[in-house]
Amino acid sequence: MKIGKETVPRTAISTADAHSITVRGVDLCGDLIGKISFTDYFHLLVTGTRPSVKAAAIIDATLVAIAEHGLVPSVQASRMTLAAAPDALQGAVAAGILGCGSVILGASESAGRLFDDIAAYARDHGTDIDTAALAVVGEYRAARRAIPGYGHPLHKERDPRVNALFEVARHHAIDLCYVDIAEAVERVLPRVIGKELKLNVSAAIPAVLLGIGFPLAALKGVPILARTAGLIAHLTEELEHSIGFALSYQATRELVFDGTQLVRS
Amino acid sequence: MKIGKETVPRTAISTADAHSITVRGVDLCGDLIGKISFTDYFHLLVTGTRPSVKAAAIIDATLVAIAEHGLVPSVQASRMTLAAAPDALQGAVAAGILGCGSVILGASESAGRLFDDIAAYARDHGTDIDTAALAVVGEYRAARRAIPGYGHPLHKERDPRVNALFEVARHHAIDLCYVDIAEAVERVLPRVIGKELKLNVSAAIPAVLLGIGFPLAALKGVPILARTAGLIAHLTEELEHSIGFALSYQATRELVFDGTQLVRS
Amino acid sequence: MKIGKETVPRTAISTADAHSITVRGVDLCGDLIGKISFTDYFHLLVTGTRPSVKAAAIIDATLVAIAEHGLVPSVQASRMTLAAAPDALQGAVAAGILGCGSVILGASESAGRLFDDIAAYARDHGTDIDTAALAVVGEYRAARRAIPGYGHPLHKERDPRVNALFEVARHHAIDLCYVDIAEAVERVLPRVIGKELKLNVSAAIPAVLLGIGFPLAALKGVPILARTAGLIAHLTEELEHSIGFALSYQATRELVFDGTQLVRS
Amino acid sequence: MKIGKETVPRTAISTADAHSITVRGVDLCGDLIGKISFTDYFHLLVTGTRPSVKAAAIIDATLVAIAEHGLVPSVQASRMTLAAAPDALQGAVAAGILGCGSVILGASESAGRLFDDIAAYARDHGTDIDTAALAVVGEYRAARRAIPGYGHPLHKERDPRVNALFEVARHHAIDLCYVDIAEAVERVLPRVIGKELKLNVSAAIPAVLLGIGFPLAALKGVPILARTAGLIAHLTEELEHSIGFALSYQATRELVFDGTQLVRS
Repeated sequence: MKIGKETVPRTAISTADAHSITVRGVDLCGDLIGKISFTDYFHLLVTGTRPSVKAAAIIDATLVAIAEHGLVPSVQASRMTLAAAPDALQGAVAAGILGCGSVILGASESAGRLFDDIAAYARDHGTDIDTAALAVVGEYRAARRAIPGYGHPLHKERDPRVNALFEVARHHAIDLCYVDIAEAVERVLPRVIGKELKLNVSAAIPAVLLGIGFPLAALKGVPILARTAGLIAHLTEELEHSIGFALSYQATRELVFDGTQLVRS
Repeated sequence: MKIGKETVPRTAISTADAHSITVRGVDLCGDLIGKISFTDYFHLLVTGTRPSVKAAAIIDATLVAIAEHGLVPSVQASRMTLAAAPDALQGAVAAGILGCGSVILGASESAGRLFDDIAAYARDHGTDIDTAALAVVGEYRAARRAIPGYGHPLHKERDPRVNALFEVARHHAIDLCYVDIAEAVERVLPRVIGKELKLNVSAAIPAVLLGIGFPLAALKGVPILARTAGLIAHLTEELEHSIGFALSYQATRELVFDGTQLVRS
Repeated sequence: MKIGKETVPRTAISTADAHSITVRGVDLCGDLIGKISFTDYFHLLVTGTRPSVKAAAIIDATLVAIAEHGLVPSVQASRMTLAAAPDALQGAVAAGILGCGSVILGASESAGRLFDDIAAYARDHGTDIDTAALAVVGEYRAARRAIPGYGHPLHKERDPRVNALFEVARHHAIDLCYVDIAEAVERVLPRVIGKELKLNVSAAIPAVLLGIGFPLAALKGVPILARTAGLIAHLTEELEHSIGFALSYQATRELVFDGTQLVRS
Repeated sequence: MKIGKETVPRTAISTADAHSITVRGVDLCGDLIGKISFTDYFHLLVTGTRPSVKAAAIIDATLVAIAEHGLVPSVQASRMTLAAAPDALQGAVAAGILGCGSVILGASESAGRLFDDIAAYARDHGTDIDTAALAVVGEYRAARRAIPGYGHPLHKERDPRVNALFEVARHHAIDLCYVDIAEAVERVLPRVIGKELKLNVSAAIPAVLLGIGFPLAALKGVPILARTAGLIAHLTEELEHSIGFALSYQATRELVFDGTQLVRS
């Protein structure tokens, strides 16, 4: 079935023949394996160019920041899945990644779009960043859209990963424009929503990645790649010592059944 | 419901409080973000220790080797999934990872187990590696088990990634014992199965990773992590220029319907 | 970690003890197994009540209508996944379901919401249905939202499943209000978008399901459940005679590589 | 890339043109929609033929038996996934299905293969069923293979769904040969493994489905289809009243961290 107008697939990422594999114009076997780090290769794959030293440092920092935070819901889902289907590691990884949605890890991308909107507003209206932040956050609020990247269930004060990432950004002297925007949002939030919500890691990641020119469209991939590393660690532990069923047992110990009681026919 | 005997979950990977996150005994925000590469962090997460310089080089090389090989079936599945469900990047990544099974990317782990069996045989029986390889591969064959990691649909001679990885291993002077075993299997295969099948990347990866002491149980995670990076590149391209439906159109252009013709009632 | 305010899980669907399982207030083993069809049970599970005879007929008709339409992209993704990972049927089913997104099978739910918006507009503004349809479709268009459920790549005239479903609805004399709305949208579309787009199955499904009071929030589940049946048929065929790799081979026969040519370093 | 020998895909399930869709030789719009139940259609899709009345009754009974059993691990994983990614219902369904593996719902298929092995043994060796069961279960035990379908964490005596299913089988007078085999295994188990393990639903399902000639290769699909219905009910409830994060909170209330304590650098 022909869906849409295009019928000839095309790609710019890689090509291969019997003797070689070319990725983004570079010979994989001759010039990449053993000669490029995985982080730099991720940048090359996604953008088509090798990162600068400072850009690579920022990408490494964000991947390290978001890879692991204990038995969060998606890790629990992944470990329960492996306990039930131990032969299919890929299925358990997939189950964990499926929890990288709008509420939790997907907030990196939507926070990036928020910052981009604010930068555009300031540019288009010739305002300073706080004015732009107030206007755009106000629009989000009026449209009942969530403000992604602020507030954290455990880290009520600023998520400690935020300052760590911003420090890396300052150390490498990248463009701090989006860091400034992220902090402006934090400042204006109380005026818009009536309470303080501090920056969390999902706002800090786009703030520093946009500062190295990392594409907005690929932002969501960063927490997904990072979390895959964390999931593999958890699933390796799960294979050694399974807790998937212990988690599900605990989860329902205080379960309330509030449905219809048995009606004998 | 209590399934199994254990009811109290436990983990050794990480813990957190309001102000800090500790991963494998290290302060994430103070001592890891900005101070460790993602590759080293992956090793720390999975094994609990930081890798040596040479071990990190080997892990980088394997991740780079297996991350991308064009529009392979799992990448096609992933891009078709994004074309149909463009709002859920995580779903498309998950669909791509679900193809990392026994036939394709999962062969890294099963090849690792084969090499481990051969090493054990040589040790237990006091034989040389070729004798052990012949015995173990013969046993696999007798039990109709596939010999994972040999032969490639495109790279009929040795997969070019194999020599690239072995060169990295030699350059860093890691333990080459499993490289020797992998090559012994290649040598004995014609005697067991009656034809030559050359080493492919899924045999080379465990051959070098086992040489740095990377745990057998985590082997399958390496191609999954690597492929996630490749999938994110493809999905970023898919968002810019969708080919998912063009692929599905092409796939069925020569489709043969060999079912029952319409029976009008 | 405590996310959100609620900490005690509750459910109204089912409960069990060592000797019995109660689902929606009914004894599963005494009063359901062998005494209720799967379709009626699906309604009981989702809504808490058994369907009327006509409601059950409508649900059956929609599930049958959408379960199978050949090698559509999500079926291809599923079969490629099974070819690559034949030991994990559940992974291949999951990969197929992941393609039930906004563009393809998810349109049932969004079309249902469109019809609901039109019904609300007519009610609130005291207009006839065509006026309401014109207003709401115009708003969607102005907001650049897709109009879900109209147009089909193969069935350029009305998708034949539409009339079949509407005939079942008329035969069982259900509330046709949403069928009327669906046809009103078809009538007004040329005025809004400048071309004819005929009803497809994803508009007909909510049109008849809303007419039996099926909950809007569960609409998306109907094509997912239906498609699972189709996927299992395809995967059973795939296990007997694999075409997953043939599909991926065909898909790339005309592939254009439009990236950077090899740059020898 | 050409993987394997076949390059031309073929299917016998369905075909379509602009005006009609043919499934298993029947006109979908003229002769199936509104005229066949979803359960009968599932049988038609998978096997190519319509089921007899008694076969349809058995399939309905098995689907009803296994669709729902409360907040089992895969349902928890699914609800946690929806809580984290509420926009992608298909992702949460997929996460739930990924838990239908060898340990839990996949046991239906492996129990079916066990019964088939026992039937073959009795036929080939001319023994009665108990002798065959003892021999085959003994072989499984010697090979350290799990005996699928016996024992249940909650239903320590026979799972109540077993007798309900067997009653349906007797009521419809289907071939009870596999029911007899399933009970023979229950009888011989204490002699082989030293303790009683009663039949659970995953043994009863293949016992009755094989008795209507349902194909062994499609057995695993039955619990997957059934569970999809249960998952949709749970996810509809989750959208109304989310407990995904409450489950994950409860799951870790007694979590023990047994890793390395923080080492300040």
